[in-house]
Amino acid sequence: MGLACGQIGKVYLVGAGPGDPQLLTLKAARIIEAATVVVYDRLVSDAILAMVPKGAARIDVGKRPQHHPVPQEEINRTLIGLAKAGRTVVRLKGGDPFLFGRGGEEAAALAVASVPFEVVPGITSAQGGAAALQFPLTHRGLATGVRYVTGHCRAGEALALDWTGLADAQTTLVVYMGLASIDLIVSELIRHGRSPDTPALAVSRATLPDQREALATLATLTDAVAAEHLTSPTLIIIGEVTRLARITGHIGHAALVEQMAAAP
Amino acid sequence: MGLACGQIGKVYLVGAGPGDPQLLTLKAARIIEAATVVVYDRLVSDAILAMVPKGAARIDVGKRPQHHPVPQEEINRTLIGLAKAGRTVVRLKGGDPFLFGRGGEEAAALAVASVPFEVVPGITSAQGGAAALQFPLTHRGLATGVRYVTGHCRAGEALALDWTGLADAQTTLVVYMGLASIDLIVSELIRHGRSPDTPALAVSRATLPDQREALATLATLTDAVAAEHLTSPTLIIIGEVTRLARITGHIGHAALVEQMAAAP
Repeated sequence: MGLACGQIGKVYLVGAGPGDPQLLTLKAARIIEAATVVVYDRLVSDAILAMVPKGAARIDVGKRPQHHPVPQEEINRTLIGLAKAGRTVVRLKGGDPFLFGRGGEEAAALAVASVPFEVVPGITSAQGGAAALQFPLTHRGLATGVRYVTGHCRAGEALALDWTGLADAQTTLVVYMGLASIDLIVSELIRHGRSPDTPALAVSRATLPDQREALATLATLTDAVAAEHLTSPTLIIIGEVTRLARITGHIGHAALVEQMAAAP
Repeated sequence: MGLACGQIGKVYLVGAGPGDPQLLTLKAARIIEAATVVVYDRLVSDAILAMVPKGAARIDVGKRPQHHPVPQEEINRTLIGLAKAGRTVVRLKGGDPFLFGRGGEEAAALAVASVPFEVVPGITSAQGGAAALQFPLTHRGLATGVRYVTGHCRAGEALALDWTGLADAQTTLVVYMGLASIDLIVSELIRHGRSPDTPALAVSRATLPDQREALATLATLTDAVAAEHLTSPTLIIIGEVTRLARITGHIGHAALVEQMAAAP
């Protein structure tokens, strides 16, 4: 690798964004196009992997022969081992490395091992989905803020979320990896006071050519997702702002659009 | 401008990201570099404005002679007017157009006026700050999710936030435009049960060469921000994850790093 013996390499924790390669940052694209070793997982789109130079080593930590994911500790050891062998490592992660990507664990492990690292943020799928479906995540009079949670729970554990807080009508709620728990999420939110009529949507493979979406209300979301045959990874977004996704795609609901344009 | 009379243009609502031009998306950079009319405001960095072609028209809607911001309705009318005159308009906004950027209002106004538009997401400053300071926004065992709110309130109104929900210890709280309300934010969070010892930080001009930060706890944040002379725009981030910002920059707190690396 052309480096002096014992010289330590560096790890770039790079966000690959939601899927569309045009949504990579300039910095991420530059790092990917110069990579000699790429460690990636299943949320990185094929179009982005196609940007990796042909001669580069590719290490897939997204699946193993029996379809079990590689344990996080083993990924950490791989990154540290490559860097200690003097390599510059590109750790490519779907979305943003510091939003549900376990990038924090990798950063901490690298810090413990005294391996230099740099983090390159990526467009997270909530942003990609909102842009693609043309609805805002916050909007005066409809949503004072946005909240990202994960619907994924560890094996054998209940999904322990702050349901009362999540039911706040003025907050757009984005659930990552929520497809398997969608029934529970919908029923708990309604039980804690979020209106069943709240507009909601689900989007899979946002920003990719095969993006699919289901537009519904909180009460009808589970059925809509089933009807559209959405599969993982699917993002769920709940809140008044998702109403705009319906109308910008179908200009004609003029009264409703005008009401949203005229923010109070 | 070379178009048939009556042909309508298009508006690109483009996220300029947190400031570092390398954090623009490939799509945003391509659109900016081909722009003939750019409508921008004060949160777009000089380095990014420097990418606009020399011959392009630049319309600054961030300030007027008496330093009053241009009213949103006037910005909407400008975008619509240019598009109806056949122009392709680049509406450049700091961060992500659909996160506190009033991009939703512009999108709705364009939809009402039947002007085609496209949204290009951008890295929001929470992501830019987290990457620059090397702490995750979510982290197993420390933060199950993240919440973005705005500390900005309309003239004459109180800052009406869901304080009880915001005090959730398992959620990273990011406050945009919170500098003017920092005293209120800190005291309300503590009053609603968030521990005064919660690690917290503030960062201004994240990802730019003159980035400044204050690392503190919830109880000491106001003093730390004053001591570091942070000015607007400043982002406030509260939660256990911000502890990592302190330690990756100062490797040596090995026990603490190891505790974070070993996610439960």
